[in-house]
Amino acid sequence: MPRDPAPIEITLPPWVAEVVDWKRRYPSDEERMRLAIDLSRENVLRETGGPFGAAIFVEQTGELVGVGMNSVQRLTNATLHAEMVAFMVAQHRLGTFTLGAEGLPDHTLVTSCDPCAMCLGAVLWSGVRRVLCGASRDDATRLGFDEGPVFPESYRYLEDRGITILRGVVRVEARTVLELYRERGGSIYNG
Amino acid sequence: MPRDPAPIEITLPPWVAEVVDWKRRYPSDEERMRLAIDLSRENVLRETGGPFGAAIFVEQTGELVGVGMNSVQRLTNATLHAEMVAFMVAQHRLGTFTLGAEGLPDHTLVTSCDPCAMCLGAVLWSGVRRVLCGASRDDATRLGFDEGPVFPESYRYLEDRGITILRGVVRVEARTVLELYRERGGSIYNG
Repeated sequence: MPRDPAPIEITLPPWVAEVVDWKRRYPSDEERMRLAIDLSRENVLRETGGPFGAAIFVEQTGELVGVGMNSVQRLTNATLHAEMVAFMVAQHRLGTFTLGAEGLPDHTLVTSCDPCAMCLGAVLWSGVRRVLCGASRDDATRLGFDEGPVFPESYRYLEDRGITILRGVVRVEARTVLELYRERGGSIYNG
Repeated sequence: MPRDPAPIEITLPPWVAEVVDWKRRYPSDEERMRLAIDLSRENVLRETGGPFGAAIFVEQTGELVGVGMNSVQRLTNATLHAEMVAFMVAQHRLGTFTLGAEGLPDHTLVTSCDPCAMCLGAVLWSGVRRVLCGASRDDATRLGFDEGPVFPESYRYLEDRGITILRGVVRVEARTVLELYRERGGSIYNG
């Protein structure tokens, strides 16, 4: 492999155009979480990746600024968890490397499952001020997914830096998608 | 923003073609670390990003399979730390979402500075079996960079899963680039 590598393209799966209404507003935490869960479910049903979805909203208006779904296998890229894709999409659309930039409104990450160690670290750099999580670390672990080195003090570290984290939002519905993935025999990549 | 987002392109800066010899072999830990440090230094001198570089090698042969450099500001993407770019490049070139796939040789990540929480999490999903770090978390923190929720048990978590981590490799040279960045007035994004 003597040449410089080609550019890496990060794309969303084609079904996003059918499923996501970018003009809709999502006023409540529950509506926002249901979009993240819908993304996780579609990713399983359309067989484009693991059972995880995420979305980023303007906290005050409920405007949608980014969506993500697990894309590890689809794009052969271990870093492309749902939250990472959502951060990339939001930052690309807004043209900023931090959603906490001066002059921008507050942003919230909504994820269908507790973030793994990588994604929790990325929360800190993303500039979001608030995080909502659906299914729990235990729910994912029971399925065979490893969540990595996340400890109670990891959450405290983020909270100490002004990030609010709310877990277990619409948890039972979120967990249903994990079970759906198992029933369909979905692979536990990087397990 | 009613439309679906455009694809996100992850590219290396043009100077990589001048600086990186993809055909060269890097037999020793020191040679491998010096490439990561060279990448961090060029990134500062060419003003393409923060003072961090990384590379991925086949452990046994010293073949180079991926390079990365902090690209957060250049590509307006908070997730693009040096290690993340190196993982993406290596996986893209090899066409696999895990460098630990059956039939592949062992791979080593070499990074010019202790990984932040996001990158340490990503190490686990990348499939590398060994990690070499140059400058320390304290060196980065003194410069004003936050490294996130990384604790002694975070390292143990990875080691318990068979990943060997060696810190402080050619540390003084690696730290010199952090100092160079400060002298040049480099910005502490996401500080």
